[in-house]
Order: sequence, then C-alpha cells, then structure tokens
Amino acid sequence: MAVIGVDAMGGDFAPLNVILGAAMAQRVLPDSVRLLLLGDKIKITEICRQQGLDTGSLAIRHCTQSILMGEHPVRAYMKKPDSSIVVGFEMLAAGELDAFASAGNTGSMLTGSSQTLRPVKGVLRPCISAEIPLLAGGNMLILDVGFNSDCRPDMLYQFAQLGNVYAKVMMGIERPKIALLNIGTEAEKGNMVNREAFGIMSDSDDFYFVGNLEANHIFEGGIADVLVVDGFTGNICLKQAEAMYGVISNLGIKNEYLERFNYEIYGGTPVLGVSSTVIIGHGVSSPKAIANMVVSAYKSIECGLVSKFGQTFL
Amino acid sequence: MAVIGVDAMGGDFAPLNVILGAAMAQRVLPDSVRLLLLGDKIKITEICRQQGLDTGSLAIRHCTQSILMGEHPVRAYMKKPDSSIVVGFEMLAAGELDAFASAGNTGSMLTGSSQTLRPVKGVLRPCISAEIPLLAGGNMLILDVGFNSDCRPDMLYQFAQLGNVYAKVMMGIERPKIALLNIGTEAEKGNMVNREAFGIMSDSDDFYFVGNLEANHIFEGGIADVLVVDGFTGNICLKQAEAMYGVISNLGIKNEYLERFNYEIYGGTPVLGVSSTVIIGHGVSSPKAIANMVVSAYKSIECGLVSKFGQTFL
Repeated sequence: MAVIGVDAMGGDFAPLNVILGAAMAQRVLPDSVRLLLLGDKIKITEICRQQGLDTGSLAIRHCTQSILMGEHPVRAYMKKPDSSIVVGFEMLAAGELDAFASAGNTGSMLTGSSQTLRPVKGVLRPCISAEIPLLAGGNMLILDVGFNSDCRPDMLYQFAQLGNVYAKVMMGIERPKIALLNIGTEAEKGNMVNREAFGIMSDSDDFYFVGNLEANHIFEGGIADVLVVDGFTGNICLKQAEAMYGVISNLGIKNEYLERFNYEIYGGTPVLGVSSTVIIGHGVSSPKAIANMVVSAYKSIECGLVSKFGQTFL
Repeated sequence: MAVIGVDAMGGDFAPLNVILGAAMAQRVLPDSVRLLLLGDKIKITEICRQQGLDTGSLAIRHCTQSILMGEHPVRAYMKKPDSSIVVGFEMLAAGELDAFASAGNTGSMLTGSSQTLRPVKGVLRPCISAEIPLLAGGNMLILDVGFNSDCRPDMLYQFAQLGNVYAKVMMGIERPKIALLNIGTEAEKGNMVNREAFGIMSDSDDFYFVGNLEANHIFEGGIADVLVVDGFTGNICLKQAEAMYGVISNLGIKNEYLERFNYEIYGGTPVLGVSSTVIIGHGVSSPKAIANMVVSAYKSIECGLVSKFGQTFL
C-alpha cells in the first residue's frame, strides 16, 4: 500500500481543483494506492459533496492552517506548523506518506524539502527539474530549475548524476546523454562555475557527458537527454519557455509541438535528491495538472526512484 | 564626414552578403557618410563588378588576412594583425573610423573591443546588448548578452546606466524603466550577485529602477524598457529567444509579432561602454541584416551615443 499526500490547500484554485484532480488521479491509479488530502476537512468534505465525489476513496488529514501563495515561504513554514504543507513534510519524514505533492507556495515546498527532509546521503544539495519537449520527439530533463541560485561546480556535477538516474528510471533512456547549458560549445566557454564543472564532468565515469549545449539548440533534440544548469539560469530558461507558450497561446496559434509545452501535461516539478518523493505543482494548476502531478508521484514510488538515488551516491 | 568601417570578410556568407548589404545601406545613408570595406581587395572588387555595383561609392581598405568564424577568437586576434577585424579596431582606436561593424567572429570582435579600444572612462566593463520585441509594442533592451560571463553587482549597476542612456538616446524613451532579470519579484530573490545588485540599484538616483522582472513576463511589455542581467544568463536568454523564432519559422507559423524576432531587423548587437561605436552582426547575416547593422552604426554616431556615455560616467 502506497500513500500519496496531496496538499488540498495548494494552488490558486484550491481546494476545488486539487480535489477534482485527486479524484481524477484516483480513477487511474491502482487500488493499492491511497490518496490522502491534507487541508481543511470541512471545506474538502463540502466540495466533495457538491461535486458528488465519493469521500470514502479520498482520505482526509485535517489541517487547521494553510500557507497562502503570496506568503513569505520560510517565515510561513516556521509559523504555520499545522499547515497542509508542513504537515505533509512531517508525515513524509515520519514515513507515514510515500510521496507528497502540492501546487502551493513553491518556496515553502522547497523549505520543507531542505528543512524537514534529509538529502539523499552523499547529495550536497537537492534540486528541482523539469522536462523540455523536443522537436525531434521526447523530452529533455533540465535541472536545476530553481532550488539553488548559487551553485558550485560539484553541485552541477551531482545534478548530472541525479538527472542521469532520473532519465534512466523515469524516462526509460538507457544511456542518457548529459550536457551542460552554456554560451558556447568549447570547454573554456561560460562563467567560472561552468568552466570548472565542464572539467570535472569531462573526466567522469559516472555518466555520459556530451559537452556544452547552447540555448539556440535547446528545443531541437538529439543532442542531450539531460541538461545541467545552475538554478538561477535554469529557472529563467524554464520561465522563458513558459512565456513562449503563453505568447503562442495568446496569439491563438495551435500547434501539436507547442502544445507539448502546456504545463498541464507534466503537472509538476519533482524535487530530486531528497529522502522521499516530493512534487511541486504549478500555482495555476487545473484538475488535469493536479491529476498528472499525483500520477507522476506514483510513478516515482513505483520505480523506486529515491532508493536508486541512494545507490548512486553510496 | 563620418566613416563607417565594415568588415567585408565577416559572416558565413562573406564577402558577398556584406558587399550587397553595404551597398543597400549606402543608398539610404546621407552623402556625408562614407563606408569603408575592410578585406581582400581583389575579391571585393570582383564581386562589385559581378554585381554591377559602383565601387566608387564603396572605399576599400585591403587586408591580407581574415579571421575565420570557427577560429579561436583571442588567438586569431593576436596572430592576424592584418586581418579585417584587427585592422578595423586599429583604425577605430586611431580615430580613422567613426564606427566599425562586423558579422564575423564574435569572440574576436569582443577581444578587439576590450584589447584595442579603451572602455569609456569610469566604465568597469563594457557589455553587449540586444532588443527583445514586446507584445505591448516597442522593444526592451537587454544587457549584458554575453560579454561578461561573471559579473559583480557594480557591473550590473553600470549595465543599468549604459542601458538607461541607450534607451534614451537610441530608443527615444524619456525616462526608461530599468529592471533586473530575476527568479522572483522580491528583493531577496536570486543569486548573491543579483541580491546585492538589487540593493544598490534600489537606492539609485542614476536611473528609474522598477525592481525584478521574471522571465515568464519577458515578452509582455509595460514592465521595463531595459533589462539588466549577467552576460551568461543574458546570452542564454537571447539564444533561447532565437531558438523560439527558429521553432516558429520551421513550423511554418507566420505571425506579425513573432516576425519581429527576425534578427535581420536589428542587424547587430552594439557593444556599449567602449570609446567608439562597435556593432557585431549575426554570423548568418543576410544583405538586409548587414544593411541594418550599418544603418544602426550610423544612428549611434549621429546620436553621439559614445559621448553621452562619457558624460554619464564623468
């Protein structure tokens, strides 16, 4: 029996969209998976009733507090011990949940990931990742996309290791090609951290390093399966891709490839390198996005992703 | 009489496209502007004859060498003193040219800008800039887009000053709004350099600082006229925008807004903060792109951009 905690209070359209999404996910997940909604029991029960949902299949853990989207992430995490996010992380740390997923305050989710959970033994700093749809087909994992604004070369090296495992286990790529996002293809290009990272990655037996990838080739495909970058630049890349999708959508342009940038498909950003499965959803998550976030949490559990990280950093 | 030096040997389709572009520019520029083509006189003369161009209006400075697109920028600059790029910078430094424009080896153009030219007095490090088309209309200047991979907070502060002058003088914006590209809107967001830069920019009387801009709003408009970023991240942003335009074009999507990303319109990346006007064109420059690069060099001269920078950093 696997238990996935879902933050019912997280996201711009919570708890409604979370409940609808959780119910959608419940329908596709095996019976051995139980979803636990964390949040205001009265509100959740009321919405379930309004929506005609069977509350029996969705367990609820009542929380008296919730962290709002605009609140200061760290402060809110400290001051709201009975909020759905803090309770979720506490339960995760205590082994009462196998995964925790929330579309709530991203900063608080990162705070919980670093303050309540432990990193996988040997991991310097956990990171968050996202998938970029490629023109050639398939996706490329990009990491870090915002957990660590300042990175050292050895952190980038470990992101490559984390991405390597993720690409194998979750994306089914046998020998993932790892690239460094940089401003030129040559070894000496980029900032000090990147140049140093290039050096240690080139000598690696831990993964298949293919060199630098320039952002003008970021959507092509065929070059890399995993793209390593510091969390500052990676976050900007991801948000710029989001801006691109926004522009395209607003202009009324419909295209099969561009539609793959729709965040709903991915549903969430996994936190990699922590001792349990954590997925952070997009603030504006629709029910479909929530459902995909939950399914993706299940997939991580099923694949034993966390224990595979553990073996890598032994 | 203004003299603009144009590197006839620079770009993937040189010298043909450069010559055609220079001739196009010549037709729209006032008679008081003379274009000087730098490069292999025999080749240039031959192409002019083939194309039926009046060689009289285009002066030529013969150079026995040229730096190739794939050559190591610094090494080539050192070893090819009679290349069109080195000669261009030497003439610029000697006051024999008022501007120098090339679609050739970008790294060598940056080498010339830093080794042969002086920075404007008071400028720590020159930078390069580009314009991002905005949905709301108009463009936003982004800088640095690749000159300085590692930046200090005071360098970012100066990029804001350079951008402020450029936006006033070249883009006609009376009181430019200056933003910092960051991963959140709050002052404490971002990496160490950005957080420190935010602090000193907030207190500034030198320009109108409007705070952080997140990349998911980068194309919208209405937020900022000038976007300040380190050259590593800025270069990646610019190349990712280029990738977006490439995707859109390859998918056969035609759209008025997206067409504004066509590099041909801009023709080049000005180097800001050096003692003379330098413009770096795109390697794949078409004749139209070259013409726009030359016209943009002329506009810089006409507006007295360099002397306005001088007044700013007094």
